[in-house]
Amino acid sequence: MTADASRRDVLIASTAMPMLGLSSLALSAQATAQVSVQPPVPASGPKKKLGMLLFDGFELLDVFGPLEMFGMLKDRVEILMIADKAGPVRSGAGPQAIADYGFAEAPKLDIVMIPGGIGTRREVGNAAFLESIRAIADATPQVATICTGSGLLAKTGLIDGVRATSNKMAWKWATAQGAKVAWVPQARWVEDGKYISSSGISAGTDMALGLIAKLYGKDMAHWVAHRTEYRWNEDAADDPFAAMNGLTGK
Amino acid sequence: MTADASRRDVLIASTAMPMLGLSSLALSAQATAQVSVQPPVPASGPKKKLGMLLFDGFELLDVFGPLEMFGMLKDRVEILMIADKAGPVRSGAGPQAIADYGFAEAPKLDIVMIPGGIGTRREVGNAAFLESIRAIADATPQVATICTGSGLLAKTGLIDGVRATSNKMAWKWATAQGAKVAWVPQARWVEDGKYISSSGISAGTDMALGLIAKLYGKDMAHWVAHRTEYRWNEDAADDPFAAMNGLTGK
Repeated sequence: MTADASRRDVLIASTAMPMLGLSSLALSAQATAQVSVQPPVPASGPKKKLGMLLFDGFELLDVFGPLEMFGMLKDRVEILMIADKAGPVRSGAGPQAIADYGFAEAPKLDIVMIPGGIGTRREVGNAAFLESIRAIADATPQVATICTGSGLLAKTGLIDGVRATSNKMAWKWATAQGAKVAWVPQARWVEDGKYISSSGISAGTDMALGLIAKLYGKDMAHWVAHRTEYRWNEDAADDPFAAMNGLTGK
Repeated sequence: MTADASRRDVLIASTAMPMLGLSSLALSAQATAQVSVQPPVPASGPKKKLGMLLFDGFELLDVFGPLEMFGMLKDRVEILMIADKAGPVRSGAGPQAIADYGFAEAPKLDIVMIPGGIGTRREVGNAAFLESIRAIADATPQVATICTGSGLLAKTGLIDGVRATSNKMAWKWATAQGAKVAWVPQARWVEDGKYISSSGISAGTDMALGLIAKLYGKDMAHWVAHRTEYRWNEDAADDPFAAMNGLTGK
């Protein structure tokens, strides 16, 4: 099959199959055909500083899915790992990552990301950590959460009245952290002002591409998806996991 | 929409849309409906030791996509990070992970995984590292590669005559590392005996679920996909990125 034939299939698929959000997958495939190894948009201005928060028991893919996507933009994004203090931080699955900065030494950020993971269950009871999250999120113009990271952010009170989503299997726990948050049960990710929140684990990778589209345009998001051979679930409203967990029709 | 209605849509999709491998996505969604927080297969016997190799310039998602999936099986899999020596190892994107073991101290493994990344371009010229990879892959009953990790493994000579795939944008470089490998240009992943190799970056996550299906059954793979809210590209032969990079019809 040639690349052209493939694109025709993709167009047929896009027309025939809107109900599962497969059209977004198809459009993504279409748009990324014949992509160059160079980004479609030239870099300009200073690099953005993207800070990813770490804590003991973070979820691996919550952290490294979004960082894979933003890591393709090394000419315009610098990634900083931030925790209570600089040094090793153990994930829920076992492998350790290294925090480059403690909260106190972290530079001013352009984007901050708050992952989820089993450690969130402990950290919602850690007033000092919550205050660090509140302060850094308050000071940063773009705040993203992945999975139960929205539970941590909700607990700070910063997103009272803000539309947000979270992990669908941990929905009850996450939403209980912020009764005044405008929780959205069916969404792959939700953007509201400077806050962008994603559903469980893998959804963070789709959200990251959504954020790249917002910051640099859709062509850039498609280019990153192509380079990473990622089939982007591009429609933020398309969330089959809500129904699977009985969270629709409410 | 109820969960039942969602599943009906999924079945319609599965029937109507085989050409893009969307049927696999749909079947995955169908099979994971109403999944419990407990694994569908009880753990038995000793834990398997899964070793992930690290080197300077590894690709983040090559490593942490598969480890996210296997990390859901903590009751039966122990993850070990292995590099030239224990300590911090920097990814191509910047963030550092920690190697728990140097090659010399690593225990006997049940599964070894070799990621790709920009560092592979240097490591194919590192005879000591290649010998470490050859020795650990030769001694381990299940060997997986992600992305250009298959180029590293090819360079050792171990997969001469073995069917394997690699990253589609780096195809020329990867395949040049092993002229006698039976390279498969169009595949999300390829299994041949004890070797399983995946296409670029994100494909490693799909392959990991394929390996979980092989080791523990398909219900387990669907359960992990559900827990991680991951839309598994379940069909190993479905690879739109081959056509996008002009690698089909050869």
